[in-house]
Amino acid sequence: MSVSTISKPHERLSEMLAGEMAAVNTLIRTRMASEHAPRIPEVTAHLVEAGGKRLRPMLTLAAAQLFGYSGDHHVKLAATVEFIHTATLLHDDVVDESGQRRGRPTANLLWDNKSSVLVGDYLFSRSFQLMVETGSLRVLDILANASATIAEGEVLQMTAATDLGTDEGVYLQVVRGKTAALFSAATEVGGVIAGANDAQVKALYDYGDALGVAFQIADDLLDYQGDSAVTGKNVGDDFRERKLTLPVIKAVAQATADEHAFWVRTIGRGRQEEGDLDYALSLMAKYRTLEATRADAFGWAAKAKASLEAVPDHEIRTLLGDLADYVVSRLN
Amino acid sequence: MSVSTISKPHERLSEMLAGEMAAVNTLIRTRMASEHAPRIPEVTAHLVEAGGKRLRPMLTLAAAQLFGYSGDHHVKLAATVEFIHTATLLHDDVVDESGQRRGRPTANLLWDNKSSVLVGDYLFSRSFQLMVETGSLRVLDILANASATIAEGEVLQMTAATDLGTDEGVYLQVVRGKTAALFSAATEVGGVIAGANDAQVKALYDYGDALGVAFQIADDLLDYQGDSAVTGKNVGDDFRERKLTLPVIKAVAQATADEHAFWVRTIGRGRQEEGDLDYALSLMAKYRTLEATRADAFGWAAKAKASLEAVPDHEIRTLLGDLADYVVSRLN
Repeated sequence: MSVSTISKPHERLSEMLAGEMAAVNTLIRTRMASEHAPRIPEVTAHLVEAGGKRLRPMLTLAAAQLFGYSGDHHVKLAATVEFIHTATLLHDDVVDESGQRRGRPTANLLWDNKSSVLVGDYLFSRSFQLMVETGSLRVLDILANASATIAEGEVLQMTAATDLGTDEGVYLQVVRGKTAALFSAATEVGGVIAGANDAQVKALYDYGDALGVAFQIADDLLDYQGDSAVTGKNVGDDFRERKLTLPVIKAVAQATADEHAFWVRTIGRGRQEEGDLDYALSLMAKYRTLEATRADAFGWAAKAKASLEAVPDHEIRTLLGDLADYVVSRLN
Repeated sequence: MSVSTISKPHERLSEMLAGEMAAVNTLIRTRMASEHAPRIPEVTAHLVEAGGKRLRPMLTLAAAQLFGYSGDHHVKLAATVEFIHTATLLHDDVVDESGQRRGRPTANLLWDNKSSVLVGDYLFSRSFQLMVETGSLRVLDILANASATIAEGEVLQMTAATDLGTDEGVYLQVVRGKTAALFSAATEVGGVIAGANDAQVKALYDYGDALGVAFQIADDLLDYQGDSAVTGKNVGDDFRERKLTLPVIKAVAQATADEHAFWVRTIGRGRQEEGDLDYALSLMAKYRTLEATRADAFGWAAKAKASLEAVPDHEIRTLLGDLADYVVSRLN
């Protein structure tokens, strides 16, 4: 496949980093093995081999390459990041009682909740061993803090999702926990291991953070205005599942007393009736919250791109900039 | 309370280390807080403040004191160890679908499974931050490996518990994951942070490992021969819950064809009838497996005590030796 026929930036990155991505995949397969508990690789393989874009490990490799890194710790850190991601998916599926992920039955459905909880714990501990092998306390500090942000964000999401007092500040924290904290840690540790200076490391953090926020806001917006043939989800799933996301938070903030009562009934109490989704959409239209949410997503993508000014001019920098455009291009 | 009126060695240790234990408790309360997600301290407090003997953090403090440590990293590591322990309890209760722990309703029952899974993850990540603060890569390596052993042991227990092919080797691995890995990491990191030499660190590991194995074997034995007024459990709970523990594993190893079929039906397939527990007990009596299990527990306690020969002569060493006797004294 020649570069010219590939248009998506993450596919171009994946091609450019093909050798290292192969090393990451080999490391993942080696480290997810368990001599004694065959259930572990079974469950992990189900998820790891389902594919996904491997965006997070690619960000780590890309950040390290941007600074001409020539060791092999970036491969370990890329695998670390993917293990943490996989572990959170396993636990999320238990928490959300999901039945499907990436178009396949979830592990908690194929095996049981126990397996998802314990194999998730195992992958966390394996990721921990991998990062210790790099011998970098700074890397360990970054990943420890990212783990705490992720876990806190997950708890916050659980308690804030149906709480109508949730404002844009709380939403942003949930989004950081859910998505942006691992994106920013992925780019940051890539720079740290490659010896980038403090300003550059900060730029990589800012890029990953803004990219993650843009990505998640776009996802939440597509839930209300996406083409279900493309997104694989039905319009309004988040409404039906009583998840307060940005388009609704913005509508709640401007609601009249009657409209507020509507949100309390449908999201706060979960007493939904036929026609409620249509009325919710009409309130979002009334206050133009889908447009405002879209503008926020583009703003974060622009912020991600702007952060890259502080890192070296490099083909990878261009692709990372394109990636920021790409995550919101789904909204056009 | 004067020392002479206290007979239990962990109570004497607790009194001797009272100042540091108070510092550990303060640190635990500070670090389990979450500015944003109040559900986290609610769930954690329920478990942390239920008491328990705080045996693991005490082992870390004791090991550091044995080498005259005067810094404050041992307090951080003691809190680390207690956080890891609390996180595994939260996840265990989800996995076991437990309704009670330490005589109180479990968190998964009071809140829900989601809270137990996510707050457990949060505590793991907090423990990770705490250990990074010590700046010791060796400590991080020990705790990363202990975490992997714990998680692997938990998965193994889930799949091996009802598998009649489970032998004493597999049982020992499960016991290490369930109990001994955190005991040995607790004593080992205490020594490492205090600058003990390699032979002394090895001795501390061996002590914690053997103490943990003795403790767990004693627990499993008491399930079949304990006084339910003392243990708070009913005789044969493990049999009813189809958990293959040492007294049964030893009986299965010597079973006739008919007896093997009995174990396959009751433990392997879980088709239990009235009178089955009595018959199981009669098979354990026939092969004297309770006596053999008891001898194993005393053997591990003796091994723990013998390991202490390599560490400095000190009042704490005497108490740690007494503690090894104490964990099996319940079997007299």
